[in-house]
Amino acid sequence: MKGRIEKLAEIKKNKPVDIFLLTSPASLKYLAGYFYNFETGPSPFHLLPAALIVGDGSNLVIADNETHQLAAIESSVSVETYESYTFEKPVDSNNQFLFHLHKSLSQYTAGKTRIGIEQNFLPLVIAQSLLTKYPDIELIDITSEIVLLRAIKDVDEIELIQKAANLSDVGQAAVLKYAKEGMTELELFSKVRLEMETVAGTRVPMMTDLVSGKTTASGGGNPGNKVIQQNDLILCDLTPCFNGYWGDSCNTIVVGKPTAEQNKTFTLVKEALELGIHAIRPGAPAKDVDQVMRSHLEAEGSFGHHGGHGVGLFYHEEPRIVPYNTMILEPGMVIALEPAVYKEDYGIRLEHLMLVTKDGSEVLTKFNHCFQQG
Amino acid sequence: MKGRIEKLAEIKKNKPVDIFLLTSPASLKYLAGYFYNFETGPSPFHLLPAALIVGDGSNLVIADNETHQLAAIESSVSVETYESYTFEKPVDSNNQFLFHLHKSLSQYTAGKTRIGIEQNFLPLVIAQSLLTKYPDIELIDITSEIVLLRAIKDVDEIELIQKAANLSDVGQAAVLKYAKEGMTELELFSKVRLEMETVAGTRVPMMTDLVSGKTTASGGGNPGNKVIQQNDLILCDLTPCFNGYWGDSCNTIVVGKPTAEQNKTFTLVKEALELGIHAIRPGAPAKDVDQVMRSHLEAEGSFGHHGGHGVGLFYHEEPRIVPYNTMILEPGMVIALEPAVYKEDYGIRLEHLMLVTKDGSEVLTKFNHCFQQG
Repeated sequence: MKGRIEKLAEIKKNKPVDIFLLTSPASLKYLAGYFYNFETGPSPFHLLPAALIVGDGSNLVIADNETHQLAAIESSVSVETYESYTFEKPVDSNNQFLFHLHKSLSQYTAGKTRIGIEQNFLPLVIAQSLLTKYPDIELIDITSEIVLLRAIKDVDEIELIQKAANLSDVGQAAVLKYAKEGMTELELFSKVRLEMETVAGTRVPMMTDLVSGKTTASGGGNPGNKVIQQNDLILCDLTPCFNGYWGDSCNTIVVGKPTAEQNKTFTLVKEALELGIHAIRPGAPAKDVDQVMRSHLEAEGSFGHHGGHGVGLFYHEEPRIVPYNTMILEPGMVIALEPAVYKEDYGIRLEHLMLVTKDGSEVLTKFNHCFQQG
Repeated sequence: MKGRIEKLAEIKKNKPVDIFLLTSPASLKYLAGYFYNFETGPSPFHLLPAALIVGDGSNLVIADNETHQLAAIESSVSVETYESYTFEKPVDSNNQFLFHLHKSLSQYTAGKTRIGIEQNFLPLVIAQSLLTKYPDIELIDITSEIVLLRAIKDVDEIELIQKAANLSDVGQAAVLKYAKEGMTELELFSKVRLEMETVAGTRVPMMTDLVSGKTTASGGGNPGNKVIQQNDLILCDLTPCFNGYWGDSCNTIVVGKPTAEQNKTFTLVKEALELGIHAIRPGAPAKDVDQVMRSHLEAEGSFGHHGGHGVGLFYHEEPRIVPYNTMILEPGMVIALEPAVYKEDYGIRLEHLMLVTKDGSEVLTKFNHCFQQG
């Protein structure tokens, strides 16, 4: 992470910025190691995000009910905690936050007037307070620069993504093992999630498509009380988050016997995925990877969504694998490929998570796409 | 909800505001029926919240990938959707959002200069765009006024909170039914969550404390791989979210036989909860409800947290049941009470969710706090 804070300084070459004030969840994790688990919604104890100030040094301002974060914070970052909520006395958490923010900023602002910020994640109350105290500062958006930095992962990030990918593998194996006629989608999901959470040792936030039968034709959705029938297809897209980083995977299986057409479609989608995997290498434009999969499936009609996407602190990010993206793939990018065919009464989507390496690529999700059980 | 949009106008009596621009998740649900499910984190397709403009009429600006929301949107609100992300062509979702925001605002801004906003939830990019286009406007924070409006629930809100409370009941019954020696906390949680999600028919976001043995002394935590032992206490605080509104409940049970002291402590906490329940009535100051529970447990040492809290679109909100809160309880407030005793090697917390009625109160969580199984 220290290396990433240094990388941030490279932005100064292209944008007239003296110091940085970062407030997006992705940047706070990326640069400081701070991860707010979103799974139960926004905090009811304070209404401001944490804030990272990066000048010659760096400071993180967090609420006092977030001190369980301290062990994960990058050691070179000074942490300032502010009072947010207590049962003992009323606290104005906004003012507490702003006091500590200004205290941290005062170390860097002497003569500095241009602050790199994230315009979508800087609440007005913070911006107003800055502009009131320092009327001469300029707030300069650096969102797109940070997005590009984040597209190429460091070793420690790849380790976390690999752990999330491993959770995907565990989940896909559980779908194959447990799916059977007569159980509901939610019952299956419960078994799948338990296996994943047992490996993680704790709760795992996850985006999940888990649908059966004709609903697979729509490409996904949350599991519900629908009972799985004999010969139903089950489409399961598991996207777990491990310590802020996401994994991704999708398989489609049949509970019973597939039709000859379904078998053929599965093979076709698997071929498209293989073609995509082989197209991933440094120097390839993102759109070429999309194209090779899309054209292989052309006779089946458009599958109507991206061929894939980058994965990291967001489950979809750059490089987007879409027909218009001219971005050149580079080592360290992590990419999920998810070609699909959707027919009138069933759909099949297969997905692997890939790392772009110096020489080509490596598949991070290790499970095999297997259509039939047993 | 239409009634709530009209109630919003009452804020104009106290604050010099002509129109409103609301961007917090709570206000969007409260006034327009829009609920973004946070369970899988922020959207990777657009970086701005939805926005509700309220003047003589009202307009909601949402991303085009959120049209599944439409059925839930209050019928008097005009919906503007903007392009956010497509695999077919590059889209600048920020500019699309701002275009539609200005289009909506243009219906109301003629001669209007004072816009009521939520300073913690208005991203700088929106504020800057407003101030550039309309240099004479004033942005006036109305956060605290909205918080007070939200403290008193309408009938449709109470219905949703009741549904969330029912899910809590299902979960607490499942803990009593399934907890046994030899299973892990995550295994128990999996069974509890499945019963709740089966009743809901879909995934249910939930905050959960589920800990066993000595960890109950700390008051909570996520379930993990710890194996439940004979005579372990299990503290389970279930806080599920149903369609944007939260429920809340806590029980502590013993798997096997409690000690005489544990039995006595359970009874004492249950008495404190009963005292709190009887103290809830219109006209009572919030702090008196806290006091009656806290003093009953005084001999056991401070339990070190609030006696309770309001529940609604946040799982903790006004009225905070704390020693310093002079807020007067009113019919329509929803309050969770959660007295506790934490000893060196075990902890017991019991919680019910209450509605303040015209004459007194009603308990929304219907389960009985039961220390022993079977």
